[in-house]
Amino acid sequence: MEKFSRNQRVATITKILIENPNKVINLNNFTDMFNAAKSTISEDLVVIKDILMKLSMGRVETISGAAGGVKYICGLSGEKIKEFAERLCIILKNRERIIPGNFLYMTDIMFNPQIIHTAGVILASAFNDKNVDYVVTVETKGIPLAYEVAKMLGVQLVVVRRETKVTEGSTLSINYVSGSTGRIQTMSLSKKAMNKGSKCIFIDDFMKAGGTAMGIIDLLKEFESELLGIGVLIDNVETPKKLVEDYVSIVDFKGIDEKGEALLFPSEMFK
Amino acid sequence: MEKFSRNQRVATITKILIENPNKVINLNNFTDMFNAAKSTISEDLVVIKDILMKLSMGRVETISGAAGGVKYICGLSGEKIKEFAERLCIILKNRERIIPGNFLYMTDIMFNPQIIHTAGVILASAFNDKNVDYVVTVETKGIPLAYEVAKMLGVQLVVVRRETKVTEGSTLSINYVSGSTGRIQTMSLSKKAMNKGSKCIFIDDFMKAGGTAMGIIDLLKEFESELLGIGVLIDNVETPKKLVEDYVSIVDFKGIDEKGEALLFPSEMFK
Repeated sequence: MEKFSRNQRVATITKILIENPNKVINLNNFTDMFNAAKSTISEDLVVIKDILMKLSMGRVETISGAAGGVKYICGLSGEKIKEFAERLCIILKNRERIIPGNFLYMTDIMFNPQIIHTAGVILASAFNDKNVDYVVTVETKGIPLAYEVAKMLGVQLVVVRRETKVTEGSTLSINYVSGSTGRIQTMSLSKKAMNKGSKCIFIDDFMKAGGTAMGIIDLLKEFESELLGIGVLIDNVETPKKLVEDYVSIVDFKGIDEKGEALLFPSEMFK
Repeated sequence: MEKFSRNQRVATITKILIENPNKVINLNNFTDMFNAAKSTISEDLVVIKDILMKLSMGRVETISGAAGGVKYICGLSGEKIKEFAERLCIILKNRERIIPGNFLYMTDIMFNPQIIHTAGVILASAFNDKNVDYVVTVETKGIPLAYEVAKMLGVQLVVVRRETKVTEGSTLSINYVSGSTGRIQTMSLSKKAMNKGSKCIFIDDFMKAGGTAMGIIDLLKEFESELLGIGVLIDNVETPKKLVEDYVSIVDFKGIDEKGEALLFPSEMFK
């Protein structure tokens, strides 16, 4: 049977780990794949573990026991996070992004895979130790970001809809009050979407007063489930948060000044 | 300055390539990062290139010239694709998925990062050589899949909305006829979402008569842009395709038989 060099094994194992974040992979997968001893694979893993730690590119954890193995956990250095948040502020400050109603056009950002991948790694790393069961978002703009966070945490994404669809089967709907506009809105979720007694985090593109997050908390109660945390790409810090207190964000938005310039800063946690 | 071993460089370069599919990375990034000669990095790349090819895990391409470098292109062996399609059929055949109206509940599949990542690699590999500018989808269920395809092709995702939103600025809307129900529907897209003269592919969860795809073709015409191809996870082959002919799919759905069993098969291209 074919033999592989250490370099070849290291490249392949790295690829498999990176593509399966937070999933425990049994070492037998690698010993079978490479026709190699467990001790050989363990040495390969030490190489990968050490260099990822050294370069702050996430980490590899060993889980012992019968169901054990190794898993890759995403991560980024504080310096890289700051760089990313600063670069994002520069992109968002472009005056052409200000649209009627003093909104910032940021749809292209939310649908840019390179930006959203990094933002997903940053937000996921705030919840790596929480044993999350689901990452929840509300359609539409936050879906790719929530998907990346779910992928990095190795869990299922759940997308709450604005209206019920025939393809969702029985659904549970709640009404909630938008914190900034005061309007009543509806959100609904298929009863098949979530097991009871689950631990969830809520990921969204933008946080204003927190009305949507409050709606999510109510909806999760209907599923006898719990919200463990909230992460958003951009926090509108101009609007006082009456409704939720505990959340993480990457960029703070302080409105648009008299010169027509958007005020954007890396969020407190990343300064 | 610190030196790195070949194993360390191979692990790091693999991670960077995998995380930036279809993006050309200049070798200077690696020579600077590792304080190593170009010839050394080239040898590292040969290791990665050879093992990915050997294991049918995608490929590494070298682009020569001043703007040159290397890029990772995703891919999967025909055998692995077939395995994936067969596994997906088994998951989808679960009787609990049949919901009133004889629909198949598949929302959890569309929001499962492990499944959608692999499906994204399979669909992206059908369009790797097309020089696509945008991957287009219609909200909501196909967004994670379209996002994965966009990420693998290294391009921007564009999400067409069912209704116009204030945060989108000026939008372009079109009406189209749903091929299966005959109802008139609307889709709209921000004028900022796409440059004129772009080449696009359309990715969606499910294809029935192809009415949505026809709508996308009309919408793209308004942006003076062109549809190069279509990819869906599941093709309803029961409904005759009057509207579009050329597309790729992973699984064929042939309806629900008299015993109440969903008829699902790997699509023709993967048999």
